[in-house]
Amino acid sequence: MFEFSQMGLRLGGPSGISELMDDLGHALASGGGQIRMLGGGQPAHIPEMDVRWRQRMHEMMAHGDEMEKVLGNYDPPRGNAAFLQALAEMLRRELGWQVTAENCAVTAGGQTAFFFLFHLLAGEMADGRRKKILLPLVPEYIGYANQSVRGDLFQAHLPRIEHTGPNEFKYRIDFDTLVVGDDIAAICVSRPTNPTGNVLTDDEIFRLTELAAEKGIPLIIDNAYGAPFPNIIFTETKPVWNQNMILTLSLSKLGLPGTRTGIVVAHPQLVAAIANMSAIVGLANPGIGQAIVLPMLQSGEILRLSNDVVRPFYIEKSRLARHWVREVFASRFDYHVHRSEGALFLWLWFPGLPITSRELYVRLKNRGVLIISGDYFFFGLDGNVDWRHRNECLRMTFTMPENVVHEGIQVIAEEVERAWREKDG
Amino acid sequence: MFEFSQMGLRLGGPSGISELMDDLGHALASGGGQIRMLGGGQPAHIPEMDVRWRQRMHEMMAHGDEMEKVLGNYDPPRGNAAFLQALAEMLRRELGWQVTAENCAVTAGGQTAFFFLFHLLAGEMADGRRKKILLPLVPEYIGYANQSVRGDLFQAHLPRIEHTGPNEFKYRIDFDTLVVGDDIAAICVSRPTNPTGNVLTDDEIFRLTELAAEKGIPLIIDNAYGAPFPNIIFTETKPVWNQNMILTLSLSKLGLPGTRTGIVVAHPQLVAAIANMSAIVGLANPGIGQAIVLPMLQSGEILRLSNDVVRPFYIEKSRLARHWVREVFASRFDYHVHRSEGALFLWLWFPGLPITSRELYVRLKNRGVLIISGDYFFFGLDGNVDWRHRNECLRMTFTMPENVVHEGIQVIAEEVERAWREKDG
Repeated sequence: MFEFSQMGLRLGGPSGISELMDDLGHALASGGGQIRMLGGGQPAHIPEMDVRWRQRMHEMMAHGDEMEKVLGNYDPPRGNAAFLQALAEMLRRELGWQVTAENCAVTAGGQTAFFFLFHLLAGEMADGRRKKILLPLVPEYIGYANQSVRGDLFQAHLPRIEHTGPNEFKYRIDFDTLVVGDDIAAICVSRPTNPTGNVLTDDEIFRLTELAAEKGIPLIIDNAYGAPFPNIIFTETKPVWNQNMILTLSLSKLGLPGTRTGIVVAHPQLVAAIANMSAIVGLANPGIGQAIVLPMLQSGEILRLSNDVVRPFYIEKSRLARHWVREVFASRFDYHVHRSEGALFLWLWFPGLPITSRELYVRLKNRGVLIISGDYFFFGLDGNVDWRHRNECLRMTFTMPENVVHEGIQVIAEEVERAWREKDG
Repeated sequence: MFEFSQMGLRLGGPSGISELMDDLGHALASGGGQIRMLGGGQPAHIPEMDVRWRQRMHEMMAHGDEMEKVLGNYDPPRGNAAFLQALAEMLRRELGWQVTAENCAVTAGGQTAFFFLFHLLAGEMADGRRKKILLPLVPEYIGYANQSVRGDLFQAHLPRIEHTGPNEFKYRIDFDTLVVGDDIAAICVSRPTNPTGNVLTDDEIFRLTELAAEKGIPLIIDNAYGAPFPNIIFTETKPVWNQNMILTLSLSKLGLPGTRTGIVVAHPQLVAAIANMSAIVGLANPGIGQAIVLPMLQSGEILRLSNDVVRPFYIEKSRLARHWVREVFASRFDYHVHRSEGALFLWLWFPGLPITSRELYVRLKNRGVLIISGDYFFFGLDGNVDWRHRNECLRMTFTMPENVVHEGIQVIAEEVERAWREKDG
């Protein structure tokens, strides 16, 4: 049919993230049916949070023409002025960060913030040099992988694997071999890491900050699941920010993914550029998410709900999922679970798995269980990196109802066992 | 501070559209104050429409957990399945178009649809050739102008000017000189044209369709203000669609710009690519706008409201604005108004204006009247096109309250008169 451009072929073709989101959206719309959807990053409908969103909608409806304005007015491209003001004041008041509204911008979801940030800083420079985004630890978020409009955008670094307990491990940044070259535009990490639930330690973050500062480049921290909200972090960490850091936040994992509300906290130079990109690419941002949480920023309630409702909810979800994994997997085959320090996923590693994780994904899908094959999260590596580990992992989400997660884990066990039996038999 | 990439310098720098949207958003948020905002494309709050949106919100709140799902669930990247289905059925039922849900995709606003479409088709091809988007008639929408991530994206063609009445003119596509080269990826027009309110005739559209078909390229028609909804078209036209046409629609000018809901109706190959781009760039689309209009698509009410409420409302707005222009401008200086055939704007031309329209913009802004200088809409032209006309026009929006529009027109007259007086005096 019609001819596509190079960029069209890249962004318009199938990708891990597009398949994943398509699976997820249709599974949700169909009410699940026979599908056990452990694939996407869909947050749970936490009853207390849903009640609060409903209250806010009633308040907005009752408050003069507030709802009509939210639906019917364009916001400035940087975001609603009252929202940006309330956000900056909350960050200053509650965390002591030196930020004003000039440090904050809204985007149409966190994913879009990354598309903008990566292309703002990396790719082809005015003088023809090319710069990349350094991912100091892969596996890293699948949603970054296909965002390049042209050429390679990422340079990824393999982690050290630390065994932290029976059937448990944790990735660590391998600082001994991490080099930040002159072709690096920024360092980027998600914290907690999507897909592994790893939470980089304060010390690891400090060392990355230092490396970035030495090179005069920013450190991007994707807080979609992290601090200060929704704070789905199960370890003790200190949220930090300075002018050399770019922090992204999102309302999605608080429970508002349908509103598409992302946030960038950064140096005003970067924030102004993000706003200009929002204007050119999208004119303005969706208003409803900002309007819903505005008073919750002003009162600080957004932090209380994160800490007292969202975080404990997912701690329990993680505990249950790990409990079932231990119980169901038992000693049927060799497995390790990444230490669950945050986010909505378990990251399972099957050392020596006789089939690839991609094949395992297909077999599970045929059994009605959707997970994500781990290999998608290992990108930005030199083509010649041959690391068997990357084909031995999978990401499973633990936000769905208990029976779905439990049954999913049982089917995973059966299929891993079958793969071993086929080999050994 | 931080170094920007080439794409970052392009998309992250100031642009006409970013300044315009920033002015607009802040003027709206401040309640207007002393600013007479005739600059942006903000639709009016039509009372009947606002009542209907409020009813819909109440219905969704009363209908089980519908609102919780809209706010709290990810849609598939192509859009909500029920929405796409209802849209396709409405287009088939009411207009007789041969479309199914496979021909429809949602984007986060119409602007984003164009960013995707332009880059899907034009720019650098896999074999190194470069292709462009042909704009067969400029002035054309300011929001396209800065969307290129690399190199020139547009090839624009100057119109013929037809004098259609006293102080009235209309642009016509100059088919005699219009050539579609092999480096053209698609032909694109907005209909009604933003900024002029021109509506290309059915014959002009037919001829463009033929030209596109000859080359095997699509014809993109931007219906943000057009058919079948919101149908802010004051002439008689026939909405047509076929597999070689890409139609974009939007909920913004119906009165829902804050929801950021754009629509693409096209060949399934293009629709699939748009969905993949939505996944990579934005993960999913905002849900609330789709949910609000879903039953209005199912019942066909969206067309009745467009034809019986929205269209007559703006016909009267246009009539009043033109009346005031005639009354206030009178014979104080030479002027022409583009024939008002649709959209939310008057396009004013001051032949021989002694200052540039950019200078006029500054003087008007100092007087508290925001319009858009016409030169922004003449892009994609060879650098050597020297056409005085392009610096003699301005776009003014007529959606604001009557006193704002009337006073704005008075101030415009005073400043144009002053420019002539300075020259002649």
